[in-house]
Parts: sequence; structure tokens; C-alpha cells
Amino acid sequence: MSDSIKSKQNQYVLTLSCPDKPGIVSAISTGLFEAQANIVESQQHDALSGYFFMRVVFTLESDKKNYQWLYSRLEAIAAQFKMTWFLHDRERKKRVLLMVSRFDHCLVDLLYRWRIGELAIEPSAIVANYPYEDYGHIDMQDVPFYYLPILKDTKREQETKLWDIIKETRTELVVLARYMQILSPEMVKKLAGQCINIHHSFLPGFKGAKAYHQAYERGVKLIGATAHYVTEDLDEGPIIEQDVERVSHNDTPHDLIRKGRDIERRVLAKAVRYHIEDRVLLNGHKTVVFSD
Amino acid sequence: MSDSIKSKQNQYVLTLSCPDKPGIVSAISTGLFEAQANIVESQQHDALSGYFFMRVVFTLESDKKNYQWLYSRLEAIAAQFKMTWFLHDRERKKRVLLMVSRFDHCLVDLLYRWRIGELAIEPSAIVANYPYEDYGHIDMQDVPFYYLPILKDTKREQETKLWDIIKETRTELVVLARYMQILSPEMVKKLAGQCINIHHSFLPGFKGAKAYHQAYERGVKLIGATAHYVTEDLDEGPIIEQDVERVSHNDTPHDLIRKGRDIERRVLAKAVRYHIEDRVLLNGHKTVVFSD
Amino acid sequence: MSDSIKSKQNQYVLTLSCPDKPGIVSAISTGLFEAQANIVESQQHDALSGYFFMRVVFTLESDKKNYQWLYSRLEAIAAQFKMTWFLHDRERKKRVLLMVSRFDHCLVDLLYRWRIGELAIEPSAIVANYPYEDYGHIDMQDVPFYYLPILKDTKREQETKLWDIIKETRTELVVLARYMQILSPEMVKKLAGQCINIHHSFLPGFKGAKAYHQAYERGVKLIGATAHYVTEDLDEGPIIEQDVERVSHNDTPHDLIRKGRDIERRVLAKAVRYHIEDRVLLNGHKTVVFSD
Amino acid sequence: MSDSIKSKQNQYVLTLSCPDKPGIVSAISTGLFEAQANIVESQQHDALSGYFFMRVVFTLESDKKNYQWLYSRLEAIAAQFKMTWFLHDRERKKRVLLMVSRFDHCLVDLLYRWRIGELAIEPSAIVANYPYEDYGHIDMQDVPFYYLPILKDTKREQETKLWDIIKETRTELVVLARYMQILSPEMVKKLAGQCINIHHSFLPGFKGAKAYHQAYERGVKLIGATAHYVTEDLDEGPIIEQDVERVSHNDTPHDLIRKGRDIERRVLAKAVRYHIEDRVLLNGHKTVVFSD
Repeated sequence: MSDSIKSKQNQYVLTLSCPDKPGIVSAISTGLFEAQANIVESQQHDALSGYFFMRVVFTLESDKKNYQWLYSRLEAIAAQFKMTWFLHDRERKKRVLLMVSRFDHCLVDLLYRWRIGELAIEPSAIVANYPYEDYGHIDMQDVPFYYLPILKDTKREQETKLWDIIKETRTELVVLARYMQILSPEMVKKLAGQCINIHHSFLPGFKGAKAYHQAYERGVKLIGATAHYVTEDLDEGPIIEQDVERVSHNDTPHDLIRKGRDIERRVLAKAVRYHIEDRVLLNGHKTVVFSD
Repeated sequence: MSDSIKSKQNQYVLTLSCPDKPGIVSAISTGLFEAQANIVESQQHDALSGYFFMRVVFTLESDKKNYQWLYSRLEAIAAQFKMTWFLHDRERKKRVLLMVSRFDHCLVDLLYRWRIGELAIEPSAIVANYPYEDYGHIDMQDVPFYYLPILKDTKREQETKLWDIIKETRTELVVLARYMQILSPEMVKKLAGQCINIHHSFLPGFKGAKAYHQAYERGVKLIGATAHYVTEDLDEGPIIEQDVERVSHNDTPHDLIRKGRDIERRVLAKAVRYHIEDRVLLNGHKTVVFSD
Repeated sequence: MSDSIKSKQNQYVLTLSCPDKPGIVSAISTGLFEAQANIVESQQHDALSGYFFMRVVFTLESDKKNYQWLYSRLEAIAAQFKMTWFLHDRERKKRVLLMVSRFDHCLVDLLYRWRIGELAIEPSAIVANYPYEDYGHIDMQDVPFYYLPILKDTKREQETKLWDIIKETRTELVVLARYMQILSPEMVKKLAGQCINIHHSFLPGFKGAKAYHQAYERGVKLIGATAHYVTEDLDEGPIIEQDVERVSHNDTPHDLIRKGRDIERRVLAKAVRYHIEDRVLLNGHKTVVFSD
Repeated sequence: MSDSIKSKQNQYVLTLSCPDKPGIVSAISTGLFEAQANIVESQQHDALSGYFFMRVVFTLESDKKNYQWLYSRLEAIAAQFKMTWFLHDRERKKRVLLMVSRFDHCLVDLLYRWRIGELAIEPSAIVANYPYEDYGHIDMQDVPFYYLPILKDTKREQETKLWDIIKETRTELVVLARYMQILSPEMVKKLAGQCINIHHSFLPGFKGAKAYHQAYERGVKLIGATAHYVTEDLDEGPIIEQDVERVSHNDTPHDLIRKGRDIERRVLAKAVRYHIEDRVLLNGHKTVVFSD
């Protein structure tokens, strides 16, 4: 069952990956059963590479002893199977920092989804390279706003400030919601697996800037958008979600941009939701997405 | 070419319908040529019923004499072919009244598209059956807001007020942006062809209220939304636009509602855009939509 | 991993459903582990109704003792949790009887997918109410063909013959591949959960015959097709798969039929594949489809 | 109205392109009116480049004098506006040569659509680089089959044979229906605008061979297919049609190939239909597709 309807109280998500081997599911499910946990959702994936991926949602009565017993048990299982694993309390919302440039349709969309309770995040900050006034129509509630204009000379300095903000706000995920500046390789490394970008094309087609103009020039019959984790290789990071819409010879670059806005905001919103619900596991430079 | 890129100055849209007969296109295009108009876009449709539909966008230098000459010529052509026709100045934006109830995702979406210049409307008023405070997060700019709560006894009275607002604000299109009250047959008649509703199902399936719950009960594998002109027959009006998304056994009614929000707002936005760009012609209880 | 790439040798599918309760996954996965089975794929679903559904694909070395031990263990677990369960050997292909009337696009499509190894079925027979000559262009290989013309008087008699064919050919699934005759309630009851129909509309809209003409009359902007299990209530059976395509005012009923053919054949092919891979579990009048 | 329902008798398609200028539509439609032709369908496109494109379907009573009068008139108009133009009699079906390699799903699909009257072509020949026996299950009716195996040394020689076949069979369109050999630049030049290929990816992503394996490696969430005119630049020709389907981490390269088959055949069938109905006009290295 999708989790949106149930209270998240006493709900936990366990995600893990390890070399494939018999007995993993038995070990995990028996451990959970003995801790008196009840499995609500479970998905697994055997990759061709011989790696095993799993996501389990379970409820556990709020009894500290139980939780500690389970935690120790999971540690033992993880050691036995050489697992990378994470245990998330679903009541605790992830702290998400949103970055934006001139086009704010993705920012507005994410904030709206958060406001109506669709997106269970805790916005930690909004960072823009345009001044606050440019976003005057947006109700940011109590989310702190930072204006970090980027000039050639100040780029390094501003990134230091950005890192300070990330640290101070205890940010767990950075979302580049049509943020048009390129982060430095150092910053990207520090944010590995914790920074999602929305690229305005159906990757691997049309990398870099002016993707809609490239699409117009090539005369494609569908345009798309791609949400991916940011890596040092620009537009080459692990893809989380993609979608497309039909276009025709009638569509000018301006029309492609308009149609693109709709694709971008829904693709980014899905990717962010998948991430914060711990549905995305990294498999090298690809992703395993346990979508609902 | 789509119109979004070109200035609308000196641009006109001619829409017409009449019994099919040779010579219509020749008469219209020659009339336009002689008036020194330049055709920018032209679409036509021969219905199986023997009716002919046409939409022509053209530019005309801002010379009053030319315009009047053309207008007289079109009157003569229209009389000859028994046409129903309209001539719209594209610089003049249509005045649109937005009605909303508890769920404001369509309202927020339409206002955002208007703000960034995507939707060339002039919002004339916002009418809600919930108080202003409920929409506090929305930047309505200078658009007047009217709170018209509906109780059994006050329904008639409130409709009189609504009609007054429509008249006073010189509204040309009423959009029921998830407005959950049913308009009276009298009101519907007065707004024929000028009132668009968004229904939260893929009509003709799941009419009436609680459409997502009906879809859940039936176990469909796709859910949808339908934008249509409002008629006396509830959920039976001419359909302007529809779209769907995939769902599965995992989706609870709550999930269907979430997915539905995304479909509703994009379907309604498309329908409103088609209408204000004079792309929708009525063909009995169906529509001809000259989409771009 | 999808099963298409791996040899099906020594592979089994276990499907089960029971009232939800802690310990199910633990019992099953531990049973499999102790039998030295290796889980290849596993999906589960907690329905809002409190029912639990599961599909597990596993490999088991071809050792009779192992298999018998596992079978007994599963019997014990099933008794404990009040499970409905099935164990399928994936090497054994399901015997499928295909029924067709005048339009053979679905039949041709299913046979082609079978020929190239995409659809792992064993066609047991082809039954038509049109003579063999009408399908002369189809290479049926060694699949026996039966011509059962239906007249008012002979309907009962022909159904008896049909039932005999089903029995004699040890048919496990009947596919109505655009078979336009209605089966009797008795026949439908005997084939419960083992008879798939393709309906030429997006149900619940446009039930009965002439669905595309109904869609044309209503002026919908998308048309669809629905694959479902046949039940006594015509066009009300549990839905397995649906899909749609965009249409416009330009499309005549004839165009809708043409577009519909493409939807019908891909929807039916998917539904048949899901069924024969034991991906479809019945949940009352709905389905749980563990799609890949 | 789509043309599929009407008899094509006495129907003609006029396609033209020229520099944009006032008066084109008036000249054409008046010429047609005076020839007592009746316009059935008309579409036009003003490209940003300042070029104008038009497709007009009209009926003309079968009177030789009328036709010759119209033809002369069109010649005069074409000279005045510097048009490139073509006039096609819709009763005369285009002669189409189908080329295939090992995978015959597109060939089978095109032949089926032809057989049931959906695709109004006249298959002139089938050319394969595998022997006839490999396609034994296909009912080719009277269409001549040529086996032209390609070896390094024989490539030049075989292309000469191919060209002879094209000439002898009076072929007007060559369809590479998953033909996996690369035509020489000379051949491509001779077939400019008359040779359609289906590429098994969503171009411009994943050019060249093994496109599905590339897609698998990159971890995209949608795969696609592209039908395009063949040019010297491999996979860079003008795109006629594209489509996509959703894939996930569960899909192996084998699954992508399976899903791809469905996309390829429907994309290629659409592109061929658009071409033979004279719906595709070349605009430099892009296309104008007047789809129905």
C-alpha cells in the first residue's frame, strides 16, 4: 500500500544493498518478525551485476528496547552479508534546501506540494542568485531565503557561503530547481547522492544549456526533462526520473519552453518524492527506483 | 506557427462555421488578401455532419479604413454562406472569472500561468464558497475576491450575486477551478459556451462526486480528468480536453487524488488556453479544437 | 530482474493471498531458504481490505526430495495463515485457447509474439465463428483450428462443443481475441479467472458493442481498450490492463477503429503475458497486477 | 476529416512550399474553386524561417479538361510564388519496397496493415539479407522477394542489384524495416526523401548499433524509437515520428528489446502512412508533418 494514507508514526524504512546470496530476505524478515515489527511494504531487486537491493517499510511499537534490539540484529545481519544499509524514522521529515535562478516554476510547485502536505519535507532554506524581490509573489512562510549572486570573481566565495548555509540548516538534500549555475567539483563531491538537478531535456540528448533550442533545431517530435543526481560529469549523473511530451513543427522554441515547464515541474517533484521516501538506491552510475 | 512568440499587435482571429459548400476558403482568403491582411495560421474542419469549421489568424496594419472594409466584406461573405462567425482582436485579453472551493491547486496553477505571461487572460474576479483567509498563501495581486458561501436557503440569492459580479466585472469566461457547487439550470443557460468545468475523472466514466473513490472501487488502471463546457446535463457537456495517468493496485483513494491533482491542473490550463485563443468551436454537443 | 533473460529451468513461481498478519514473509522466505531455494523476484501487496498478496519467483535445484520437502512446508505455512496458494513450474508453458471473430489483429499479434518466443504460451487451439479460409494468411503452425459458427438455435450446442475442445486440449486459459459472441453465464462460471477478454473501450465508459461509435458520438479526446477477466456481468469483470491514445475532432469512427486496433493488441498482449507469468491475483472484483 | 473513410476516387493532394508572402492561400483556393474542385482538407505552416508549407486535399470530377485547366493554373501560380509543388492522384497507391534483416516484426506489421487495407501502399518488393526460408511464416502474397546477402566484398555489387530492383519495380519509397546494413552515400543520395529508416532509440540519444544496450547502460527511464529519412549522416536525417515507453531498473537489455519492438513497429507504421498520404514536407533537415 502506498504510504500516503497511513500515519507515519512508528513507521521505519530500511534500505539496503549487498552482493546477492541466498538467505537475505529470510534473515531480514525473520529479524523484523522477532522484533514484533509488521512489514507494510517490501520491494527488492536482483541486478544483473549480482547485487541485491531492498526497501522494507515496517511499523514498530514505540518501545525503545524493541528498537535497540532490532538495530543490533540488523547490524549483525549487515555484517554477515556485507550490506550497506540505512534505517529511517518516517516521522522525521528530511531537511531540503531549494536553489533557484530566474525561472521559479519548479520552486513554486515544490513549495505548493509541501504546503498542502503532499511532499513530506522540511524546507531548510531557499538559495537564489537573484534578489528576494524577484520572488515576491511566493509565500515562503518561515523558510529562510539567501541571496547569493554569482559573479566570476565571487563564485568560490559564494560556494563557501552556500556550504555554511547547508551545514547551519542541517540540510540533507539540495534540490537544484532550475538553478542555472554550475557547482564546483568539490561541492558536487560533498553532496554526492544528496543533490538532485532537473535538466530540461530527455537525456542523453541535448546536454548543456539551451536544450530546448537544440531540440527545436534538431526537429524532434517529443521533448522531455530529466531529474538526476548531480555528479562531476555535467548531465551524466544517475537518472531518477524522466518524462516527455509531444511537440510538432508548429512549436517554436518559446512553445517548447512552455511545454517544458510542465514536464520539468512534475518530473522534479516525482524525483524529490522518491528520494525523501527512500525509494532511490544508487547502483553505480544508475539508480534503482522502488516507485509506488 | 504558434502564436506565443509573435507580438499580438494588429493580429486578429476569425472563427466561423457554416454548411459545407465549395468556395468558402476562396471567398475568405481572397477577402483577407484584398484587405491587405496576411494569414499567419489557418485551420479548417469538414465534419461528417456536412458542417464546415474554420479558424484563421491574420495580421492587419492598424488602419481603421482597412478594418472596416474587411468587416463589411466578411459580413457579406457570412450572409452568402450562412455563417456563424466571430472576429477577435488578439491584443484584447479575455476577462476570466475563477471559481474555487476547498481545493485550490487549479486556481494557484492558473494564476501562476497568468503571472508569468503564459496564459493571456485578464482575471476579472475570484469567487469562492470558502473565506478569503483560506487562500491566504495566494498572491492574487489586484484581482477582486468574493466570498459567496452556499447554504441550502441562500443558494438562489448567492447566484443572483454571482450574476451581478459577472456583469459588473464584464466577465467573458467563467472557469470552475474545482468549484464543487452545482450551478442552477438558469445560470448554466446564461453561461452557455462561456463556462468551463474540470471534472476529476475520464468522462464518461465516473460521473458526479467522489470520482476517485469510484475509480478505486472499480480497479481501473488509468485515471483521468476532463475539461468541458458546463451544460444542464451534469458532466455531459462538450469535452474540450482530457488526459490520464497510470495507477496500480498500490494506489489508495488518497494516491488517486494526489495523482489526479496533476492531471486536473494541466487539463484545465490547456482547455482555458484553447478557449481564450479561440481554438474551440462548438459542433452540437461536441467540440472542434484547433490545437497548436 | 525480469524473467525474460534467464532460463526458466528449475524456476518456480509461488503466488499466495491471505488475511494480513505479522510473520508471513518470514515464514515463506525462511521456508525457501531452508529448502535451498534462491529468491529471484518477490513482490507483495497489503490491500486496504486487510488482505495480503504475494508473488515469489525462486530457483530450486532439480532434486525431487528438495521439492517435496518444500511443498510440505508450504502446505503447513498455508494452513497456518489460511492462504490460497499456487506453485507453478516455469518450464511448463500454459495451454492457451484463442477465440476470434472477424477481426484477427489480436490473434495475429498473439501468434507472432508466441512465434518469436516473446510470449511463453502453448497455444492449445484456435476457435472461430468464421471459416478457416478467412484466416488463410495466418501461419497457425500445428495449432488445431475449430470453426464453430454461432446461430441463435445452435448457440447452446456450440458451447458444448467449445467446452469439449477446452477439456480435450487441456486448455488453462481462454483468450477472447476480439471474439464477438457472448458466452453463456454457465460457461463464464466454469472459466472464472481463466478467461480474458479485450474490450474496445476504456471501461467503464462505452460498454457493449459499437464502443468506438459511442466514443465518436460523445466526442472524447482519448480512446482506449481494456483487458479484463470475463464475468457474468458483461464488461464488469476485474480489469487487468488498460491503455489509451489521443484522438481529435478529425477522427471519424473509422479512424477510431484503426487507432483502437493498435491499443487493443498491445493491451491484450500485456494482459496475457501478466496472466501466464502468474502476475495477476484476484482481489474480489479487482486485480493485483505484479507487473515487471 | 481524415481520409480513411471516404473513397479516394477523384481525390487529389496538392503539397507545396515557397517563401512566405501574402496571397498564396487566396491564389490556390480560388484556382481550385474555379476548377470546380472541392477542398476536403487543408493544412498550412508558416515556419520561423519565412517559408510557407501547405497541403490541400480536394475532389475534382473526372473530367480531363478540368484537370488540365487546373494543372496549368497551378503551374502559373507556382511560377509566380516560386513554389516547389506536387500533385498526387490519391487513387494511385505508392509503390513501396520493404527491406529487412533478421528481425521481421516491422515487416510483418507493415504487411498486415497493408492486407487489411489500413496502409494504402502497393508493395513493390521485399529485399532481405537473409534467405527466404527465414521468413517462411509470412504470407507475402504476390510480392516478389529478393535475397541479397551482404559480404564485405559483395556490398558494392549487391547495391547495384538493389538499384536495379528499385528501378525495375518502379519503387517510389524504400522502407528500412529494421534493415541492419548501411547504404552507401551514393545510394542514400539517389533515395533522398524517399527512404525511411526506423532507428531503435529516441534520437539524438543512442546513435549507431546496440542502442538498447546503450540505454540499459545509461539507466534511462524511458526508451524510444525514431523514424527518419535516411541521409548521409547516419541517424541524423529529418525526423518524421518518435515515441517512447517507460522502463525501469527491472528491465534487462532483453526487456528493452521486447518493449522496443512495440514502439518500433507503431512508429514506423505511422511514418510510412504519413509519407504515403503526402503529409510530410521537408524543411531543410527537419520535417513538417501534417498529421491527421
